[in-house]
Amino acid sequence: MTQLGPGRPRLEARRRQGRTPRAEILDAAAELFTTNGYGSTSTRAIAEAVGIRQASLYHHFAAKDDILDALLGETIAEAAELAARLSESGEPAAVRLYALARFDIEQLCAARWNVGALYFLPELRGERFAQFRVRRDRLRESYESLAARVVAEIGAGGVAEASAIPFRLVETVINIRSDEGAVSADTRGAIAEAVLRVLGWHGDVATVADSADALMGTSGA
Amino acid sequence: MTQLGPGRPRLEARRRQGRTPRAEILDAAAELFTTNGYGSTSTRAIAEAVGIRQASLYHHFAAKDDILDALLGETIAEAAELAARLSESGEPAAVRLYALARFDIEQLCAARWNVGALYFLPELRGERFAQFRVRRDRLRESYESLAARVVAEIGAGGVAEASAIPFRLVETVINIRSDEGAVSADTRGAIAEAVLRVLGWHGDVATVADSADALMGTSGA
Repeated sequence: MTQLGPGRPRLEARRRQGRTPRAEILDAAAELFTTNGYGSTSTRAIAEAVGIRQASLYHHFAAKDDILDALLGETIAEAAELAARLSESGEPAAVRLYALARFDIEQLCAARWNVGALYFLPELRGERFAQFRVRRDRLRESYESLAARVVAEIGAGGVAEASAIPFRLVETVINIRSDEGAVSADTRGAIAEAVLRVLGWHGDVATVADSADALMGTSGA
Repeated sequence: MTQLGPGRPRLEARRRQGRTPRAEILDAAAELFTTNGYGSTSTRAIAEAVGIRQASLYHHFAAKDDILDALLGETIAEAAELAARLSESGEPAAVRLYALARFDIEQLCAARWNVGALYFLPELRGERFAQFRVRRDRLRESYESLAARVVAEIGAGGVAEASAIPFRLVETVINIRSDEGAVSADTRGAIAEAVLRVLGWHGDVATVADSADALMGTSGA
C-alpha cells in the first residue's frame, strides 16, 4: 500500500489497468459492477478501489450511471466501427459476417471484465440508457443485414428466419464467461463458424476464415 | 384496492398468478427482481406487492435468497426432467436434442417473467447458489452429451467443437426477451433448428420436428 502522507493513506497502490485516471476508474467500476453488482456498488467504493478521493472521481464522471454508460459503450464501439467499414466492402457477405463475428467474439472475450453481463440490468431499460440501446440496436441491425445477405447468397437452403441469430450467438460468449470464467479458443472458433451455419450455409470454413483475415489485414491462421 | 379494514389496507387486490400464497410470492418476486433489480428489492416490497404482511412471507421463505433460489430452480426443473427421460429413449440423437431444445425454448418464453436474466447476477457465484449451479451444469451436460451424439450420427461433416453451443443457443431467448420483450414464433423455431445446424447437421427439419412431436406425445405441427 502506498502511503501519501500521515493520516491520508492511499487505499491501494496504483495497480489499475489504464494509463489515465479515467481509464482506471472505468476498470475499477467494471470489476465492482461485475463481481459485486451494479446496485451494490457506490461511487465511493469505486474511488476507494482506484485509490482516489470521491471528489476526484466526480471530476471525471458526474454520476454512477455515467460510468456504466461509458463501460457499455466500450463493449460495442469497435464492433460498430468495423460493421460500418464492412458495409462498404465488396467481399461476399459470408466473409464479412464471419469477420465481424470473429472480431466481436475476440474483443468480448479479451475485455478484462465481462461487462456484457450488465446488459441484463433492469436499469438499462430506462431513459438514461436510451442512446446506448439505439447504438446497440444499430450493431444488431448490421449483423441482421449481413445475415440476410448471406441467406440471399446461399439461395435455396438459406434460412431467412435465422437472420436474428448470429448477433445473439456472438453474445453467448458473455453467458459462457459469466458461468465458466473464460471461453476456450475452440469454442470461440466454433461460435464464429456457427454464425454462418445457422443460416443454412455449409461451405468451407477455412477458406472463409482466410478471406476474413485478408480483409481485416491480419495474418492468416 | 381491497380494503381489509380501517387502517390496514391490503396493498393490492389478490391479482397475482398462482393458486397458493407461495406461488403468489414467487410471481411478485419474479416481477420485482426482473424489473427493479434483485439488489433493490426487499422482502418487504415483495410482501407489499402480494398484499400480505412481511411476517406471512417469512412463513414461506426465510430470506430473499431462498426466493431467488426457488425461482431459478423453476427455470430448469422441467427441462432437466425431460433431459433425463430423453437419455433413455432410443430415438436418433437429433430428434431428442431438437425435442429438448424446442421444449426448453417454449418454457423459457412462456414464463411470465424473464427470470433467466437473473443468471447473470454476481450473487449466483456464491456458496448459497452452489446447488443451483450444479443442477444447471447437469442440464448443460445433458445438452452437450446429446449434441456429441448428433455429431457422431452425422459422421464426416459433424462439428465436434460446437457441442457446447446448443445449450447456449437455447438460452439466447433470455437475451432476446431482455432486449425486445418477446421472442417471435419464427425466431423460436429458427433457434431450435439452429441447435442442429451448428453441429454440421443439414437434414430435413420438418421430419425431425414431426418425430420430436411424436416422441413428446404432442400433436404434429
